[in-house]
Amino acid sequence: MEKIEFVLPGDIEARSFDIIEEELSRRGIVLNEEQKPVTKRVIHTTADFEYADTMLYSEGVIGYAKNLIRQGADIVTDTNMAFSGVNKKVLADYGGEAHCFMADADIAEEAKRRGVTRASVCVEKALEIDKPVIYAVGNAPTALIALHEQIEKTGRKPALIIGVPVGFVNVVAAKQLILAGDVPYIVNRGRKGGSNVAAAICNALLYQVRKEDQEKA
Amino acid sequence: MEKIEFVLPGDIEARSFDIIEEELSRRGIVLNEEQKPVTKRVIHTTADFEYADTMLYSEGVIGYAKNLIRQGADIVTDTNMAFSGVNKKVLADYGGEAHCFMADADIAEEAKRRGVTRASVCVEKALEIDKPVIYAVGNAPTALIALHEQIEKTGRKPALIIGVPVGFVNVVAAKQLILAGDVPYIVNRGRKGGSNVAAAICNALLYQVRKEDQEKA
Repeated sequence: MEKIEFVLPGDIEARSFDIIEEELSRRGIVLNEEQKPVTKRVIHTTADFEYADTMLYSEGVIGYAKNLIRQGADIVTDTNMAFSGVNKKVLADYGGEAHCFMADADIAEEAKRRGVTRASVCVEKALEIDKPVIYAVGNAPTALIALHEQIEKTGRKPALIIGVPVGFVNVVAAKQLILAGDVPYIVNRGRKGGSNVAAAICNALLYQVRKEDQEKA
Repeated sequence: MEKIEFVLPGDIEARSFDIIEEELSRRGIVLNEEQKPVTKRVIHTTADFEYADTMLYSEGVIGYAKNLIRQGADIVTDTNMAFSGVNKKVLADYGGEAHCFMADADIAEEAKRRGVTRASVCVEKALEIDKPVIYAVGNAPTALIALHEQIEKTGRKPALIIGVPVGFVNVVAAKQLILAGDVPYIVNRGRKGGSNVAAAICNALLYQVRKEDQEKA
């Protein structure tokens, strides 16, 4: 039986990231320096090294995303699980707010009345927010498809799409829509992803911004 | 580029489970009939077939867990993310309630005052609940270790442990503690797991109970 090591709760994360770093290096995987904190946090959240091969970043997206956060961008998630996972305190320190409209009673009513999906009403509501929006989709490909449709139809766009829905139906195709579009993205190609992964990506960006600003101070 | 298939939102889940079934069969994996709905829902949540090999169930745990739900057992989770993911409506239909004490102000205060971890104060509080408790751990091995310590120290036990923390430090060892104990368990051995996996296991049990009861009615 493995022994429980005594590691202070605050040290577990740093220790985990060291182990991930070692294993990436043992596997001969070299990540882009800017993207590394994000990919590593996704691996930390899933214990799944496959993400080192499948995470896709649009050109320059990390610097761009960090600036969005510094400008007080909001984060909209497709599920309450992803919403719970986002570090709303750090986001608020930069003037941003997190939202998830999915379970709101008025969303369900409006979707029913208009005969459309709740996901598409959520997307409309998010695109009406009068500041830059990071749209993080961890669960439903439907949300990514609705996002693509609204962008095509209205020309309104989120500032950044985090597209990591998980599953077996329309997930791969929905991600391809975002990869082919012109909104900056962080996407995990293939079937894998999840609300936990979406939250981990948001948090990796938030923590990176905080770390850089603390180092500057 | 893959085409988006038109699948009604309500049909996506059934379709996904069919795809999982086909792929399991193509991989020559035969799951125990009782455990299958749980393992399949975990694969549905993660798109990761590795869980078919690593999910461990104590003898007879599925029938036992379904009876716990029918008796109105509560579910305690270690994180708000897992809490958000549990279907609290179905749980309430059977008289159960979901709890997550982790972010409660009094937990933090008490932990600080006594110089112990928040996880261990949460475990104590959970074991004081005056009805059967399903303890679902998706994030922190610390919660499983605290659970083991409290059981050893007080003899109080949860009715069932869902032990699927994820990570690189003490996760494997913490799961081994639960596997070696005498509380019925559902555990994913190794590093993988997560709050989403913990919620998926709870929901698989809840949906199975509802389905069986609907079929009987």
